[in-house]
Amino acid sequence: MKEKRYAEFLPPTRLLLGPGPANIHPRIFQALCAPVIGYADPELFPVMDEIQEMLRIVFGTQNPVTFPISGTGSAGMEACLVNVLEPGDSVIVGITGYFGDRIKQVAERLGAKVVEVRGEAGTILDPQRLMEALQRHPEAKAVAIVHAETSTGVQQPLEEIGAAVAKTGTLYLVDCVTSLGGLPVRVDRNQIDVAFSCSQKCLGMLSGLSPVTFSAKAMDVLKHRKTPVSSFYLSIDLLKEYWGEKRIYHHTLSTTYICALREALRIIMEEGLEQRFKRHQEVGDLLKLRLQKLGCTLFAQEGYRLPMLTSVLPPSHIDVLNIRGELLQKHNIEIGVGFGELKSKIWRIGLMGYNARRTCVEQLCGILEDYL
Amino acid sequence: MKEKRYAEFLPPTRLLLGPGPANIHPRIFQALCAPVIGYADPELFPVMDEIQEMLRIVFGTQNPVTFPISGTGSAGMEACLVNVLEPGDSVIVGITGYFGDRIKQVAERLGAKVVEVRGEAGTILDPQRLMEALQRHPEAKAVAIVHAETSTGVQQPLEEIGAAVAKTGTLYLVDCVTSLGGLPVRVDRNQIDVAFSCSQKCLGMLSGLSPVTFSAKAMDVLKHRKTPVSSFYLSIDLLKEYWGEKRIYHHTLSTTYICALREALRIIMEEGLEQRFKRHQEVGDLLKLRLQKLGCTLFAQEGYRLPMLTSVLPPSHIDVLNIRGELLQKHNIEIGVGFGELKSKIWRIGLMGYNARRTCVEQLCGILEDYL
Repeated sequence: MKEKRYAEFLPPTRLLLGPGPANIHPRIFQALCAPVIGYADPELFPVMDEIQEMLRIVFGTQNPVTFPISGTGSAGMEACLVNVLEPGDSVIVGITGYFGDRIKQVAERLGAKVVEVRGEAGTILDPQRLMEALQRHPEAKAVAIVHAETSTGVQQPLEEIGAAVAKTGTLYLVDCVTSLGGLPVRVDRNQIDVAFSCSQKCLGMLSGLSPVTFSAKAMDVLKHRKTPVSSFYLSIDLLKEYWGEKRIYHHTLSTTYICALREALRIIMEEGLEQRFKRHQEVGDLLKLRLQKLGCTLFAQEGYRLPMLTSVLPPSHIDVLNIRGELLQKHNIEIGVGFGELKSKIWRIGLMGYNARRTCVEQLCGILEDYL
Repeated sequence: MKEKRYAEFLPPTRLLLGPGPANIHPRIFQALCAPVIGYADPELFPVMDEIQEMLRIVFGTQNPVTFPISGTGSAGMEACLVNVLEPGDSVIVGITGYFGDRIKQVAERLGAKVVEVRGEAGTILDPQRLMEALQRHPEAKAVAIVHAETSTGVQQPLEEIGAAVAKTGTLYLVDCVTSLGGLPVRVDRNQIDVAFSCSQKCLGMLSGLSPVTFSAKAMDVLKHRKTPVSSFYLSIDLLKEYWGEKRIYHHTLSTTYICALREALRIIMEEGLEQRFKRHQEVGDLLKLRLQKLGCTLFAQEGYRLPMLTSVLPPSHIDVLNIRGELLQKHNIEIGVGFGELKSKIWRIGLMGYNARRTCVEQLCGILEDYL
């Protein structure tokens, strides 16, 4: 049988300054090219243990149940919600952008009643409003918010809500997809019960793995569920027996990806978390300064701007989508645009993980100067 | 902050002759090391289209809805079941091993009523028994079977059941995790409505992607659901808008994995499907002959033995687990053992994708000779 011939495909060499993936450290490529091993190879087990140890450090938690899900950040979001929520449960969801809205959609598909607390895009949610919602809905199984709203570039403060939720039987569930590895999440100190992230942003790996963590309080809620978790693939009870000492087969995880995640976490440990946060903050600040000098207006509320993802309104005569296209096609630089109504209004510029470097700022702003 | 130092980890160089992953073609390593691109890069879209074209060829289908899920084969299984089944629906499941049983577990978690048709491990299910079950349960939403039962090495015939199910409103759902790319699945000819597979077996990639295909009949069932699909991450309706012309963002798929899957499929197209099936059959036959000469007894029913996965009972004085360990530790050769009761009884030896080569048979049998 002779089939249509497909040519070799070599992806273009892009500088990835969108919302992720970012470019990866050369050592991650090395890890991807290491020999393949089996999912039950005894050499893999210490790797799995070390990943859990390092993820606890990055999350800032002692939670034993801390490991990556075999899927993207969206799978991690669903894993957190499907394990916590049962059909008919209420959940309070803070929404100021696309990803808060996605939490709502995922929860509704699971049969939960969503109590929305909405805020304006580009601003934080006043913690007081979430606490009032909790007072009105003490039956809520969880209060869910987005730490770093990637669609708007806003950083939601975590501590005050955590302290309020901790006094109740409700769980505190936080989307850390864009923040983990670039900003302190401090799961234990902020009294977060359930958190999820992704591998391709500030952790510095490719997409495809989604670290999650569940507190003792969350595990107690899981233990007292009246119905089984509807997802086999995302069941924390099953997954923890694979990631724990028993090594009970659950799914064929990609050992290559697992080894590459270990390498990404090892790079983080070598740099040191505080230094890594400082680096993200400094280059993020530099980018914001440069963009303002070029006549752009920062979109996110002052005082709550994400270091790793800068949302910006160009001068009014600028065609946002057109320049995004030219940067990609002519200069091999990828930046993001907004979601929905913001699509033709803002750029979203990421400086994440390996790309949180001054040279990335210089390359982008040097070229933007020609357009602005 | 100074953290505990983690040493560099270089995985051992194993010959992977278990149930998958197998070793990968050097060109897959090259694809993994190509520059990273974004999930909305225009250069990615033709790659996504070509993957769908090539998957249709490998599945043997014209189904427009044919693409990989971002997860392992288990995610693909769940994707197929969660989209087809609604709570309270009946589903007939053929079970002769671990993976048939898993279909049952996944379906039950989704709230479906499972009608089990069980057969002995190592044998096929008599198609007549499934058809009788369908007559008793005409309300069943689907008849689900495993084409290649990886836990026992048995190949279930597909055609007769397909012809019977096609006369009804019930869907025919087939697990092709181990068969796709190594055996003809012939989705259209066998009148299969829903099928799923994995990337790390006979397709020759790493694990982490799960190709699925849905027939027009299946899409019609989805269209007439009374309840939303409970999974956002695995919703075929959402995923097809991302894999289709609209390119509506759904999740951040791993572009690197997608490019590597394209390369794996391209290797299959170059070889030709028929030649690839022949290669798997010939080395599988050779392995079975050699193992019998070494005093082993083939476990699977004659006439229905899988080419790519050979299950075998060693001579009775042999310690199955011990020799599995020695092969791995002393000789860097991985083979599999059984699940559950079969754990200390059978070896499961895979010759999949790149590893379906005579040299792999020679390496393994040469060493096994010393033990048997």
